[in-house]
Amino acid sequence: MSKLHHIGIAVRDLGRALETWRALLGVEAGPPVDVTEEGVRIAFLKAGEPKVELLEPLGPESVIARHIEKRGEGIHHVAFSVPDIRAAMERLRAQGVPLLDAEPRFRGGNRYVAFCHPKGANGVLTELVQYLSPEAEAEGY
Amino acid sequence: MSKLHHIGIAVRDLGRALETWRALLGVEAGPPVDVTEEGVRIAFLKAGEPKVELLEPLGPESVIARHIEKRGEGIHHVAFSVPDIRAAMERLRAQGVPLLDAEPRFRGGNRYVAFCHPKGANGVLTELVQYLSPEAEAEGY
Repeated sequence: MSKLHHIGIAVRDLGRALETWRALLGVEAGPPVDVTEEGVRIAFLKAGEPKVELLEPLGPESVIARHIEKRGEGIHHVAFSVPDIRAAMERLRAQGVPLLDAEPRFRGGNRYVAFCHPKGANGVLTELVQYLSPEAEAEGY
Repeated sequence: MSKLHHIGIAVRDLGRALETWRALLGVEAGPPVDVTEEGVRIAFLKAGEPKVELLEPLGPESVIARHIEKRGEGIHHVAFSVPDIRAAMERLRAQGVPLLDAEPRFRGGNRYVAFCHPKGANGVLTELVQYLSPEAEAEGY
């Protein structure tokens, strides 16, 4: 059983995008956080239980920079939280869904993540995420 | 206050996409429904409170057919439920966010919808939706 956890939107300028989305949705945002190992600065908007994540590239080598260069700003990925990421990955492998990660990656001190290839998911880059605690999952990053 | 209600994914073949996403997420799907006024066949996956909507074009003139032709399969739109769609549209107009609809459109016998132009939302086609009842909102379409 998976739950939609967040959608990630690639943006050129996080400060301006936060203004746009706060206005669009009438909701508050968490503080911007640099995720240097992935070359992005991110912030989460509190739009109900699942969240909207805005991702600005920190440099031209960031996957987010390459996404924007190729496709423009827009949705980069969709994340689903799962109770057991290894079991979820096994299930997908058994069903022939191609994964971008052979093993879950530990990120942010509070979660494991793995990505499915868009070609196995109707063009959608799909992230599986297992948080270490319900509090970390509610906080969102 | 807006809540993420669903993400809509444009797919070529709803039957196969339902198999893919049921496997990906380990969740059940509602029955496929034809929305002839919009030229699409849709189904919702029950992935937590917000849902994943799969949209297959019913013909080449469908906006979904044009989306797939131009960008391939993938995310088409993101929908947020709002308590008062006219108030939300007024707020967006006042803030200079371009809308694709001058008035809310009544759809499916249970909801009003309006779309924001992607250029006002970092490349994301954003749908506002106001359901007539909490039951209709939970059901998803």
